[in-house]
Amino acid sequence: MAILCRPSIAVPEYVLTMEHTLELARTLHADHPQLGLALRLIENTGVKTRHIVQPIEETLRHPGFEARNTVYEEEAKRRVPPVVFRALDNAGLGVNDIDLIVYVSCTGFMMPSMTAWLINTLGFRTDTRQLPIAQLGCAAGGAAINRAHDFCLAYPDSNALIVACEFCSLCYQPTDIGVGSLLSNGLFGDGVAAAVVRGRGGSGVLLERNGSHLVPDTEDWISYAVRGTGFHFLLDKRVPTTMKMLAPALWTLATAHEWEISDLDFHIVHAGGPRILDDLCHFLEVDPEMFRFSRATLTERGNIASCVVFDALDRLFEEGGVENAARGQIAGFGPGITAEIALGRWVAAERGTIPPQALRAAVV
Amino acid sequence: MAILCRPSIAVPEYVLTMEHTLELARTLHADHPQLGLALRLIENTGVKTRHIVQPIEETLRHPGFEARNTVYEEEAKRRVPPVVFRALDNAGLGVNDIDLIVYVSCTGFMMPSMTAWLINTLGFRTDTRQLPIAQLGCAAGGAAINRAHDFCLAYPDSNALIVACEFCSLCYQPTDIGVGSLLSNGLFGDGVAAAVVRGRGGSGVLLERNGSHLVPDTEDWISYAVRGTGFHFLLDKRVPTTMKMLAPALWTLATAHEWEISDLDFHIVHAGGPRILDDLCHFLEVDPEMFRFSRATLTERGNIASCVVFDALDRLFEEGGVENAARGQIAGFGPGITAEIALGRWVAAERGTIPPQALRAAVV
Repeated sequence: MAILCRPSIAVPEYVLTMEHTLELARTLHADHPQLGLALRLIENTGVKTRHIVQPIEETLRHPGFEARNTVYEEEAKRRVPPVVFRALDNAGLGVNDIDLIVYVSCTGFMMPSMTAWLINTLGFRTDTRQLPIAQLGCAAGGAAINRAHDFCLAYPDSNALIVACEFCSLCYQPTDIGVGSLLSNGLFGDGVAAAVVRGRGGSGVLLERNGSHLVPDTEDWISYAVRGTGFHFLLDKRVPTTMKMLAPALWTLATAHEWEISDLDFHIVHAGGPRILDDLCHFLEVDPEMFRFSRATLTERGNIASCVVFDALDRLFEEGGVENAARGQIAGFGPGITAEIALGRWVAAERGTIPPQALRAAVV
Repeated sequence: MAILCRPSIAVPEYVLTMEHTLELARTLHADHPQLGLALRLIENTGVKTRHIVQPIEETLRHPGFEARNTVYEEEAKRRVPPVVFRALDNAGLGVNDIDLIVYVSCTGFMMPSMTAWLINTLGFRTDTRQLPIAQLGCAAGGAAINRAHDFCLAYPDSNALIVACEFCSLCYQPTDIGVGSLLSNGLFGDGVAAAVVRGRGGSGVLLERNGSHLVPDTEDWISYAVRGTGFHFLLDKRVPTTMKMLAPALWTLATAHEWEISDLDFHIVHAGGPRILDDLCHFLEVDPEMFRFSRATLTERGNIASCVVFDALDRLFEEGGVENAARGQIAGFGPGITAEIALGRWVAAERGTIPPQALRAAVV
């Protein structure tokens, strides 16, 4: 048994609207030969608002990688703790109950990782396992859920805390002016998320199976160039077509679990961009309404990288969830190109935990 | 059941001797007010030879973070594959048998991670789980073993491949001239290691328990400053005293497993420096001879970060191992300050795998 409990999310106080984003693109790139295309692509994202950790004037400046990374560290240390405590509250657990902290973030780099700081500062046990992951990008939200699931399978009395901290605005690179970069500048937002996977008890999504899939030979479709100015996000124009290649992996995992993917009761997927959601509806034969949580995240907060799946999942909780034992999937997508997929059943809070033997019978 | 099979190790062809290191320190820092101290500290490491990925003339130049990271990527792609194939051979497995790749490295940064490249290039299955870890430093060798162990506990029919790739010479920073930096310049070496943890079958170390320990409030003792020039390794002068604080964690884990740590049959520990090994003998009440594998790694290859535990373990295999079912520990130490500890029993190749029920009886 491993139950992913209700996540906790926070977005920063500085809001950037679509109108402001378009205005900035027009001003900063007035002479850009492909400005029209870039503006259309940004408009097509449907991202109405984003939240960023600094005022836009600060964000547009590049004070160097070191200063940027210092801002990352300061903002992470300021913004992560309250989100962690809310996630613990959601799970009905305290710091002493946590056996593993999975910290995912691709927008800043620290060694020791934030896991050490969290243990020291928030009072987690000194024997808490630390699993910091920096290189899975947007797929890291799904990966964190899946590795936490694995850990609770290995140690059924354990609990894992997941923290996702993404300040994409700190990877803004003023000198990157390809169309892919201009689009990215209009797509990504900042956010912090946390969630607990409980080995026993709790309510939320009972994780039953997970899987990973790498689309062969797509390493250069989404990548970082690592430079003296920090991480430069490179987005290939083929990325929006990715779902054609990833949807079969989602089908395959569901089928292996004897589930029909088109027949699931909830879908929490990474909202990398609007095309991903549109294509998934098509390839999975699922009504667009099923992706309303991911769509809302994208519209209101932009692509907040590894935080997206938690933000979308929180919206499912907010709506009241689904029927007890209803089946669903959670999927993160990111560089590789990689999908990290989880299949699980809803365990409603009011009805408590379903006895495992009953669930196993229900699965077959 | 999870058996850590014989590792495979490779070190680069460019050799740097203690004499050459001392000569370089004398030449490059002739006017340094603490040169004498730095030279003594370097001599005290006992590191006779190190191996680096580029000729020393290249290593001493700093062509910028981007160029350095490009060298990292090229060298990793060149040097990792043969080590991986030997580790698979050692485990009697092929690429199709691997379910998880744990790739640990703190001396270069790539996204997508090397895990994606390995899957694409060496023919691993597209559903292989990817676990890249960049922020645990020297402790990542132990962490990789422990997370692979956990994975095989969760999925007993699975196998995990561990890859550790550390090119510490690519983090040489000519402008860092504190005594800690001069010492580090004389201590760290480059290496690549790989090992398989088999869920079933195999010979080597049968992993029985693992644990992690963070020494409170020591985050700034070993750390990276992240700058435009790359990762700057910062080593506090208190680090050599670390074992006084970590040894109790080793004791505690062994005691929880009903083992006497001073009574174990083998010790494979991270050889961060000579003091660590001396102090461990003292605090664990163990004969220095028991640390001969770690000592040999340090002497012949320097501190090769997360590769150390694999190099030391390989020397135990080379020596013929210990008696079947003999008990031992593997421990990685690194930034945090963190220890990642594994307890296990030797499973001799010629006698095959010990039936699990017999082993369980033996543990009690």
